[in-house]
Amino acid sequence: MGTDNQVIRCKAAVAWEVGKPLSIEEVEVAPPKAHEVRIKVEASGVCHTDWAYLYECGKGMAPRTFPLILGHEGAGVVESIGPGVLGFSPGDKVIPLFLPQCKQCECCLSSKSNLCSENWENTQQGVLADGTSRITCRGQQVYQFIGVSTFSEYTVVPEHNITKIHPDAPLDRVCLLGCGVATGYGAVLNTGKVEAGSVCAVFGLGAVGLAAVMGCRNAGASRIIGVDINPDKLEIAKKFGVTEFINPKDHSKPIQEVLRERTGGGPDYSFECVGNVAVMRAALESCKPAWGTCVIVGWTELEDMSLAPIDLLLGRTLKGTYFGGWKSVDGVPRLVEDYLSGRLLLDEFVTHTLPLDQINQAFELLISGKSSKMKIHSVMNYSCLRWSRSQSQAQVLRWTGQQQQDFSPQSL
Amino acid sequence: MGTDNQVIRCKAAVAWEVGKPLSIEEVEVAPPKAHEVRIKVEASGVCHTDWAYLYECGKGMAPRTFPLILGHEGAGVVESIGPGVLGFSPGDKVIPLFLPQCKQCECCLSSKSNLCSENWENTQQGVLADGTSRITCRGQQVYQFIGVSTFSEYTVVPEHNITKIHPDAPLDRVCLLGCGVATGYGAVLNTGKVEAGSVCAVFGLGAVGLAAVMGCRNAGASRIIGVDINPDKLEIAKKFGVTEFINPKDHSKPIQEVLRERTGGGPDYSFECVGNVAVMRAALESCKPAWGTCVIVGWTELEDMSLAPIDLLLGRTLKGTYFGGWKSVDGVPRLVEDYLSGRLLLDEFVTHTLPLDQINQAFELLISGKSSKMKIHSVMNYSCLRWSRSQSQAQVLRWTGQQQQDFSPQSL
Repeated sequence: MGTDNQVIRCKAAVAWEVGKPLSIEEVEVAPPKAHEVRIKVEASGVCHTDWAYLYECGKGMAPRTFPLILGHEGAGVVESIGPGVLGFSPGDKVIPLFLPQCKQCECCLSSKSNLCSENWENTQQGVLADGTSRITCRGQQVYQFIGVSTFSEYTVVPEHNITKIHPDAPLDRVCLLGCGVATGYGAVLNTGKVEAGSVCAVFGLGAVGLAAVMGCRNAGASRIIGVDINPDKLEIAKKFGVTEFINPKDHSKPIQEVLRERTGGGPDYSFECVGNVAVMRAALESCKPAWGTCVIVGWTELEDMSLAPIDLLLGRTLKGTYFGGWKSVDGVPRLVEDYLSGRLLLDEFVTHTLPLDQINQAFELLISGKSSKMKIHSVMNYSCLRWSRSQSQAQVLRWTGQQQQDFSPQSL
Repeated sequence: MGTDNQVIRCKAAVAWEVGKPLSIEEVEVAPPKAHEVRIKVEASGVCHTDWAYLYECGKGMAPRTFPLILGHEGAGVVESIGPGVLGFSPGDKVIPLFLPQCKQCECCLSSKSNLCSENWENTQQGVLADGTSRITCRGQQVYQFIGVSTFSEYTVVPEHNITKIHPDAPLDRVCLLGCGVATGYGAVLNTGKVEAGSVCAVFGLGAVGLAAVMGCRNAGASRIIGVDINPDKLEIAKKFGVTEFINPKDHSKPIQEVLRERTGGGPDYSFECVGNVAVMRAALESCKPAWGTCVIVGWTELEDMSLAPIDLLLGRTLKGTYFGGWKSVDGVPRLVEDYLSGRLLLDEFVTHTLPLDQINQAFELLISGKSSKMKIHSVMNYSCLRWSRSQSQAQVLRWTGQQQQDFSPQSL
């Protein structure tokens, strides 16, 4: 191919500094080094985490190094491969993964974890295995957010941070499996291990929460109680499987009491899909004292949650989930197939698509949610929803179409 | 029998008010009502919880109603049975249980919990099913601590709060299975579900912690790291199975860092057997981020623990245990048999026995731990050790012997 082994000049959204809008720039993407793959990114979800690392650094999120290219929910096509790469060829449809699966480290060899230690420290620092990124702009190294950087037309990732997917997969849908949908769905199936007939509560009905609802439904839960302060969530949540909806604002009692009363002692499982430490406590306290399991899915880095030990001592379990417990390279292609076979919904998450140029508008839509027409729809990843904000579903950036287009089956 | 259907006058240690020493009094113990059993208590462990409800009311522990007869780690013989009791006859050796097992409630019918809702509210309030206690003193009703009150020569408990044990069982040993030893041992086997080959850390090497160590050994753990601020614990802990000992005071780094370094990332399981919220956090943070399970065994009622959600999000699990997860009526007789067959150690927990008259001395010994000769040895139950104090093993009160006698195989 013409671009093989050459630097590619392309468009990317560069975050030059904390708190400032992204800047659409021409960047240089170097060829992949050994055991790396260069991808032409076709679509990317916009996740609250992307926004939060730019605008909430030092508040909810630990600082990152700038300049930085955000974006970690992408899908694309292999453009070229570096030396030693065996599993990929140019043209393969792939999803880049912020969580690798090397299949050799202690975690990969254990059935008890989906973590992978390969390049963990480096990618957390925004660089690849050799300690540098593959992207530069105006002569400066640009860091790759958790090693991925999908807000760029091209990116380079380590070979274990990528997975090949079914050639029929529509990239502007399956990109959502790069983080948020996989996280919420897997939190239920892999981490909570919800059993058929269970009563479940899902706190926060953004994309992660809706994916958790879908997981509860596919696990055979008998009741799925959606909890959100936005009453408009009920309609969309029904599509994913919610059987009841509670708006904490409609009750004077704390939500945990409301849930315990309504379920004869508490749900068997509760899922916190918000990333708010007060909601985490409420989710824990709402589930059944004797055997309730509460899974923390929402992400926050700098705040502590508190709990009364007595709320664990009688029998509750508190867990967290990372990428929904999926072994990433093995798990994501199976989720793609579940989507293709109709078992897993993805189209319903997407309400807007925008071109890369409009990334700042996407962020605004993600956060403002002012109008019910424009309620925005970012793919929430593990970072998730902010409880106090209008929560959103999925927004997809597509590099190919320059016109804004609404993919949603109807207005939400 | 001569006492059947009659009020029994006997000796008991009455707690008249918070913060005051117990008073040895003559009390009246009424005959058992329907579905109740009157027991001649032959021996009782002294648990830190007993002490704490007297001296730490409003600090670590929620207030109880006084006057009160404490004691909840007893063993004895059935003296008489009330109407409708089918499973017991006078002369049966029994262990009274603060946790019942009715075999009919939602929890009893579930394999996911060992709780039982029968009389739960009442016994927590110090009364039996009809809302009164069976013990009076100087014309006043005396409340029965968690429905049990073993610091009395006789007591009355509901039929589901008692279990029949092997006739060969020595009551001044198996009484320890009424709380502390069962709790620590079961925390490992039932709640943590430690797997063979695991690396385990046990925080606090009092009776609960030593029982947890024994559980780790019997589960086949490859390394059992005891953590205690009292260096004298090493020798006794070895008898129960500790393979390594760490005194946090010997290190300038936080104990969680020391543990992570020494185990290549953290133990697979950690058990908090102290009841201190700072130790709970340390125990959680010390276990392996990718799959570590931390079980809270120590009891505290009024303080919150805090944790960083990120310490769960990568894969840790935080659980609590109540009575070690044993279904009480079914489980305790099996533990007695494990003791009789040599699989479970009990003798090694006991260092002193005292007559009931010396209960205040027992409390002093429990708390002071001044001399290594007199290091005292209370059976720690779920209430457990205080981190900042010299921690203790088991002290048994025996009603029959009036002479102080040291049952321990050697001085500890």
